[in-house]
Amino acid sequence: MSSDTLIRNGRVITATDDYVADVLMRAGVIHTIGRGIEVGEDVAVVDATGLYVLPGGVDTHVHLENVIGPTITCDTFASGTRAAAFGGTTTIVDFALQTEADSPLGAIARAQRSAESQVAVDYSVHVIITRVDDQVLKDVRHAMRFEGVTSFKMFMAYPGVMMADDASIFRMLRQVGADGGMVALHAENGTVIDLLIKEALEAGHTSPRYHAMTRPAIMEGEATHRGIRLAELAEAPIYFVHVSSNEALKHIVTARAEGIPVFAETCPHYLLFDDSVYATDDLEIAKYVMTPPLRKPNDQKHLWRALRYDDLQVIATDHCPFCMKEGHLGYRLQKMRGKDDFSLIPNGAPGIETRLVSLFDIGVMQGKLSLNRFVELTSTTPAKLFGLFPKKGTIAVGSDADVVLFDPAASQTIYARDLHGNCDYTLLEGRTLQGKVEKVFLRGQLIVDGAQWQGREGMGQFVPRGEVKAF
Amino acid sequence: MSSDTLIRNGRVITATDDYVADVLMRAGVIHTIGRGIEVGEDVAVVDATGLYVLPGGVDTHVHLENVIGPTITCDTFASGTRAAAFGGTTTIVDFALQTEADSPLGAIARAQRSAESQVAVDYSVHVIITRVDDQVLKDVRHAMRFEGVTSFKMFMAYPGVMMADDASIFRMLRQVGADGGMVALHAENGTVIDLLIKEALEAGHTSPRYHAMTRPAIMEGEATHRGIRLAELAEAPIYFVHVSSNEALKHIVTARAEGIPVFAETCPHYLLFDDSVYATDDLEIAKYVMTPPLRKPNDQKHLWRALRYDDLQVIATDHCPFCMKEGHLGYRLQKMRGKDDFSLIPNGAPGIETRLVSLFDIGVMQGKLSLNRFVELTSTTPAKLFGLFPKKGTIAVGSDADVVLFDPAASQTIYARDLHGNCDYTLLEGRTLQGKVEKVFLRGQLIVDGAQWQGREGMGQFVPRGEVKAF
Amino acid sequence: MSSDTLIRNGRVITATDDYVADVLMRAGVIHTIGRGIEVGEDVAVVDATGLYVLPGGVDTHVHLENVIGPTITCDTFASGTRAAAFGGTTTIVDFALQTEADSPLGAIARAQRSAESQVAVDYSVHVIITRVDDQVLKDVRHAMRFEGVTSFKMFMAYPGVMMADDASIFRMLRQVGADGGMVALHAENGTVIDLLIKEALEAGHTSPRYHAMTRPAIMEGEATHRGIRLAELAEAPIYFVHVSSNEALKHIVTARAEGIPVFAETCPHYLLFDDSVYATDDLEIAKYVMTPPLRKPNDQKHLWRALRYDDLQVIATDHCPFCMKEGHLGYRLQKMRGKDDFSLIPNGAPGIETRLVSLFDIGVMQGKLSLNRFVELTSTTPAKLFGLFPKKGTIAVGSDADVVLFDPAASQTIYARDLHGNCDYTLLEGRTLQGKVEKVFLRGQLIVDGAQWQGREGMGQFVPRGEVKAF
Amino acid sequence: MSSDTLIRNGRVITATDDYVADVLMRAGVIHTIGRGIEVGEDVAVVDATGLYVLPGGVDTHVHLENVIGPTITCDTFASGTRAAAFGGTTTIVDFALQTEADSPLGAIARAQRSAESQVAVDYSVHVIITRVDDQVLKDVRHAMRFEGVTSFKMFMAYPGVMMADDASIFRMLRQVGADGGMVALHAENGTVIDLLIKEALEAGHTSPRYHAMTRPAIMEGEATHRGIRLAELAEAPIYFVHVSSNEALKHIVTARAEGIPVFAETCPHYLLFDDSVYATDDLEIAKYVMTPPLRKPNDQKHLWRALRYDDLQVIATDHCPFCMKEGHLGYRLQKMRGKDDFSLIPNGAPGIETRLVSLFDIGVMQGKLSLNRFVELTSTTPAKLFGLFPKKGTIAVGSDADVVLFDPAASQTIYARDLHGNCDYTLLEGRTLQGKVEKVFLRGQLIVDGAQWQGREGMGQFVPRGEVKAF
Repeated sequence: MSSDTLIRNGRVITATDDYVADVLMRAGVIHTIGRGIEVGEDVAVVDATGLYVLPGGVDTHVHLENVIGPTITCDTFASGTRAAAFGGTTTIVDFALQTEADSPLGAIARAQRSAESQVAVDYSVHVIITRVDDQVLKDVRHAMRFEGVTSFKMFMAYPGVMMADDASIFRMLRQVGADGGMVALHAENGTVIDLLIKEALEAGHTSPRYHAMTRPAIMEGEATHRGIRLAELAEAPIYFVHVSSNEALKHIVTARAEGIPVFAETCPHYLLFDDSVYATDDLEIAKYVMTPPLRKPNDQKHLWRALRYDDLQVIATDHCPFCMKEGHLGYRLQKMRGKDDFSLIPNGAPGIETRLVSLFDIGVMQGKLSLNRFVELTSTTPAKLFGLFPKKGTIAVGSDADVVLFDPAASQTIYARDLHGNCDYTLLEGRTLQGKVEKVFLRGQLIVDGAQWQGREGMGQFVPRGEVKAF
Repeated sequence: MSSDTLIRNGRVITATDDYVADVLMRAGVIHTIGRGIEVGEDVAVVDATGLYVLPGGVDTHVHLENVIGPTITCDTFASGTRAAAFGGTTTIVDFALQTEADSPLGAIARAQRSAESQVAVDYSVHVIITRVDDQVLKDVRHAMRFEGVTSFKMFMAYPGVMMADDASIFRMLRQVGADGGMVALHAENGTVIDLLIKEALEAGHTSPRYHAMTRPAIMEGEATHRGIRLAELAEAPIYFVHVSSNEALKHIVTARAEGIPVFAETCPHYLLFDDSVYATDDLEIAKYVMTPPLRKPNDQKHLWRALRYDDLQVIATDHCPFCMKEGHLGYRLQKMRGKDDFSLIPNGAPGIETRLVSLFDIGVMQGKLSLNRFVELTSTTPAKLFGLFPKKGTIAVGSDADVVLFDPAASQTIYARDLHGNCDYTLLEGRTLQGKVEKVFLRGQLIVDGAQWQGREGMGQFVPRGEVKAF
Repeated sequence: MSSDTLIRNGRVITATDDYVADVLMRAGVIHTIGRGIEVGEDVAVVDATGLYVLPGGVDTHVHLENVIGPTITCDTFASGTRAAAFGGTTTIVDFALQTEADSPLGAIARAQRSAESQVAVDYSVHVIITRVDDQVLKDVRHAMRFEGVTSFKMFMAYPGVMMADDASIFRMLRQVGADGGMVALHAENGTVIDLLIKEALEAGHTSPRYHAMTRPAIMEGEATHRGIRLAELAEAPIYFVHVSSNEALKHIVTARAEGIPVFAETCPHYLLFDDSVYATDDLEIAKYVMTPPLRKPNDQKHLWRALRYDDLQVIATDHCPFCMKEGHLGYRLQKMRGKDDFSLIPNGAPGIETRLVSLFDIGVMQGKLSLNRFVELTSTTPAKLFGLFPKKGTIAVGSDADVVLFDPAASQTIYARDLHGNCDYTLLEGRTLQGKVEKVFLRGQLIVDGAQWQGREGMGQFVPRGEVKAF
Repeated sequence: MSSDTLIRNGRVITATDDYVADVLMRAGVIHTIGRGIEVGEDVAVVDATGLYVLPGGVDTHVHLENVIGPTITCDTFASGTRAAAFGGTTTIVDFALQTEADSPLGAIARAQRSAESQVAVDYSVHVIITRVDDQVLKDVRHAMRFEGVTSFKMFMAYPGVMMADDASIFRMLRQVGADGGMVALHAENGTVIDLLIKEALEAGHTSPRYHAMTRPAIMEGEATHRGIRLAELAEAPIYFVHVSSNEALKHIVTARAEGIPVFAETCPHYLLFDDSVYATDDLEIAKYVMTPPLRKPNDQKHLWRALRYDDLQVIATDHCPFCMKEGHLGYRLQKMRGKDDFSLIPNGAPGIETRLVSLFDIGVMQGKLSLNRFVELTSTTPAKLFGLFPKKGTIAVGSDADVVLFDPAASQTIYARDLHGNCDYTLLEGRTLQGKVEKVFLRGQLIVDGAQWQGREGMGQFVPRGEVKAF
């Protein structure tokens, strides 16, 4: 049986274009785009009149089944990718953690083993590099050439756990950049933040609000600047994950104005919420304990400006879910592990399913982002920067038929119980948003049909990635 | 007879995409894009294997038959648009000059009368506003609503001739911006430059090199900043024509980083040449007498940086041709009018035919611009900023079938005698460039076929324009 | 009888130093500074234990008897200089207005004729240049060489009245700078502001608050930038009067960081008050109608920062008094002239007598300025920038014995009725300030002794001035 | 016998003033300044007609007898302070190194023991803090309160030797700043530089020129920015030693424009020489191996600009002498230790004796610095920033009578053999400089009289220091 499908009469939105046409998906790719396309009976026809036809979302910052300290993110590759699909995301890039015991290559293999039978959308991984030596650098080169893994993440935070020193980051930037790949950086000054945390706890400040107070924006800005200078010296591109503050952003803006190829993402929660949520000692705010923490309304203003003017290029979720309730789906000692000590709260929040719709509502509907820019930020540019384009990230002949039919006229109220991941809360609980994902196709196959799940575990594929495409 | 054509197997480049496909042009628009499109015998088929399929160029800064002081640019609408077509440009935006005697509406009508029987590509005009009062503002609003003219140009230079005072510019910015249009500004401090010119002549400095020395970049920077602040106060977008220097550019960069909707173009000559050409008293350099003058290599470095990072959004030609030789095609007192007094040299240089190929050679081939960015700068963004999109500026279903087949592997040596405009010189004389326009279609009709002219005068249409599309 | 005086045991404060010593004033100058100076009976001895011994204040921005439009500032040279003296200021620089009818030299002569029989402190004038031609430039040079007048003021505001065009300002900057003098600029964009005023009045917005709303900070910033670029092109120093907003200040900061010799003053009212005073239609706020208007608290923050870090070098008063009450001391149609039309309110406010004490209270006492910096801003640097140093502006051997004994421990409540000028109001009415001028010496002669006036009209001298001393 | 001296008729220069007077030094301090001071026969009279009377130089960055790795700087406290005196410097601040074995207090005591019998000028020490814990912080506070040591130096370079981590620097900044003291920072990114050195050596790049190539200005800039952000978070002032590059300087400029109390010094060698000296593999250039290395002419341009506009506040020498010749005065394995491996060359160059005269020649004589600014940079501000003022750093009644008589009309040619320190070379060998130190008084005692040494070892005193005086 053919799985070919014709999407009739939708409004196709890409990073550049906006037009009404029929889109024929054949053999998993976009085959033809045109007016009045005629097809045989073996081709399913979906009427998309009044709907947007968007390229499937690309979320390059998600944590599924990630072991983080003594716990693990509460979405499996199965639950997380199902949630992603319902949210209109058809490609994710997760993480593979280099451990002391193994090499980057082992990390990739392990991640693939975990993912392959579970994933319902296409995927890849960034390898987290915590230790750099000659052998690691060889393995990194091998991963780029032969494994299709062309991006690597490093941390300036979490000393003793994830933090790499500046020389190690520099070595990675230099080699990976020369090889056409990308180093992504978590930019916060780890030793100062750890000192502030220790001092807060010693002062008896144990409630979750101190998470935010011990991670000042100045220290995100410092590390961001440091990363930029390392990239400049290495003559390499660099990518900053989860930019939350103007203190960080301003360095990115300046660097780009100097011609240094700096790229960066922000996340929906930094656009949706601000640090006023922390003005309580209520344990509930453990929900908002993510890193970096939420910042000020003034930071949001700058983030929106940067999204418009291309000083930020990507909106990814940093989906990193932990349950609030002890024992939810069997998960224990997640957020509540830190009820007496904020430093034990696992950092992160869910968001993989609500990315597109929340940005449509607060970005597009409020005139902050054009439709083209919305697609560019959530699909096209992440695909280009991480070597997935043109297979992913656009609606063009020959590209994978990853397509979202999106209803701009519908609205929905978000409740955690209706979402499709494992997490027992959403930051958007009870919030009514304009826009709705109606149907999702992965390589031409319908996987989401309204509220119906048509996908299946394991149907997602590992996508070998190529070089960075920037500018 | 059908004029439908199928372009088979070309590499389609848009501002975002890059893929191989067939493109079917029907009834003047892009009808279908796909793989293995089958057509009947009534459809012409052009094999584009190995060629780029580009959207027709959009050149938003050209001067055809423009009366400038006591002379007139030496390209007619006929010769100029033919040259444009050979260069891969299928839409131009020329100028209509408000005179003392008439209103902006009269200016539009006059320009249309001159153009309509001659133009071989599609066109519109910016109205040059030299005088602002309540009636002029009413006419401007009328032009936007009913004439499809949504952009207006004003001058900070040329006191007593074109220069408008700051209050007039502010009034225009405020109204036109609120109405969804764009004010384009020539930013140079006119009174200071006129003083410097007067002083130079008094000092006996009459040779063409003093043209450059009396138009310092600092005064371009000053006026650019002033224009930005007027736009900021007016809460309106603004567009700067022919940005030549970093002194001007740096204000644009800063303003965009502040969230002020500032847009700007540069021109090929600022990227191709620098002020070292002026180091002689030879009259030959009257060729390079354009405004602003050529700047320093350091300025070029900054312009290229800005083109990559979207701080400049458009490359237009400022095609403003005057003959060097007295009597060429009957034109008299053009460049040589100023042989004893540089201030009498009409300012401008030709360029309409060489834009795409020169930028392909020095931009794309040298790795300064990606193919996508090349298309964005020369077609898509000018179309968006000046209300021509999506009719013009892209290859997408429903858009006008303005298509260029471009051979990246061919090369050509440029001689004025081979070009198709009236001017008797080109700044690129004898220069060999990589890339070649092979075929050009205007609304589906083949108008350029290699060296053959298939177009005809008057086939070009006036394009009513809409609102600015930015971001 | 000798007028020599020994000031015993005071705390001498200069821009650099701070020490306790005796200061012997002899023959009008500082003769000796030391410990335990012994003097004969013919020398008066004043015990200054516990008092600061400050150099007399230098106020380089005052308007006495200035004809402004149809009215005149309500302080005569007599009343204004008496008030200055009571406030601890022993040197003023007023203005001489070049009229259509006469030259800069005539303007100086006229000002001197008015002043000489009245002034109670030393004085000079800046010449206001409204029209520039070759003869004016010759006269300006003559004034610098032979009249001891080395500074000139020009306006970018008030078109048709005071405004000079950019070319004229440039010519003056170039010549005066090369000759070692200084051009002071009133930086506001006159044509735009006049348009806004006209539009406000047409809209029926006649109350004084619209004065502030029609002079936006953006237009002060624009003009400031323009002036800087003109100075850069002219390779000349420049001085901005009455900087009120960060929009203006930021350009000054940037220019200095680029090595352009830009200098600037702010005035006490911009530090003491903000635009919240305008939030009413009460005619009372005509008191606060000065140009530029009061700005936002955020601007004040930046002004203070700049005062600390030497991005602003002078605090002058812009003392420009007009009476509120019709007929006060016979003055008519002053502030109330504009009761039905804010544009008719003469711009300005009094301040000559309260400068030192108000800055001591809000600057020094609140830790915003050191004592050295307080002296530098109010005496030393204005003296250096305007060619009065070392005759004026410091306490050093050989300098004029202009000395203020200031009691930091005393406090006073300010009422207009207690002040010594003609104006019927003060912006500080009822405000209690720390610090008090106890005694003032002009060239060694006691002119203020507590509440007693010991000076006399005409004892002030015209001070021929020299070159700018900066850095 | 009285050691009182009257300096007759000199031109007294302070940071503010410039006047001709007599200066009476009595009991070690400035007693009286005036005209025609009469003294008894017991007072020595020195005629200073035609000479400048300057406050003794304050050099806050010198290394005498400093053990650095396996070697020691080749000036003892005796030889180094004698050289300082001949150069017009009467106060030095050296370093006391906290070792693993002892506390900051022990380090101070050790330095004092070494110095006290040898020093010929007054002195203090900065304590170098390499390790921070609660006890160290207590000792630091004790040193400030009871030992008169109020400044501390930390390193971002030299990992494993001197480098402190960011959290340690932050803790020091916070406490020392709150207590009124100053942390001085050596700002270079140590781990990256060490990697570059290691890689250079592995590549066989062993000659001294690679010293410069492995310490890129970008890494000085990075560390400078990091230090500023740590200071901002700590709400503390910070001081950067030996700023050499615009990459570092620009952050200082920006921070000051933001109101962050950042202070910095540069050194004469960065103003006198540039990196063109490194364009050879000659071992001779070991002379120029100091840290940071010499930079580009463009950096010099920015340093001079900053010195004029107060973005740099101090010129200190970083006098850190090592002999070139093996065995000179018995010193072995100094510069030549690194003849086969540049990383073994001890970093540093001599300069303590030539500071004033070289700056007078290239700064004052060339119009880059005024005389007042020359004094401010070399004496007054270092004294204020490091708690020595007003005892040191000015000529004012009550200040220590540390006075230099300087002949601006004399000139001298510099040869190492004529200098008074132990080092066998000077970077200024054979250079003729305008200006000459004629006489030097330390607390009223003549210690240098032309070429005659009148001082004696041990006459210098430890100066307990107070709080930072800035602004």
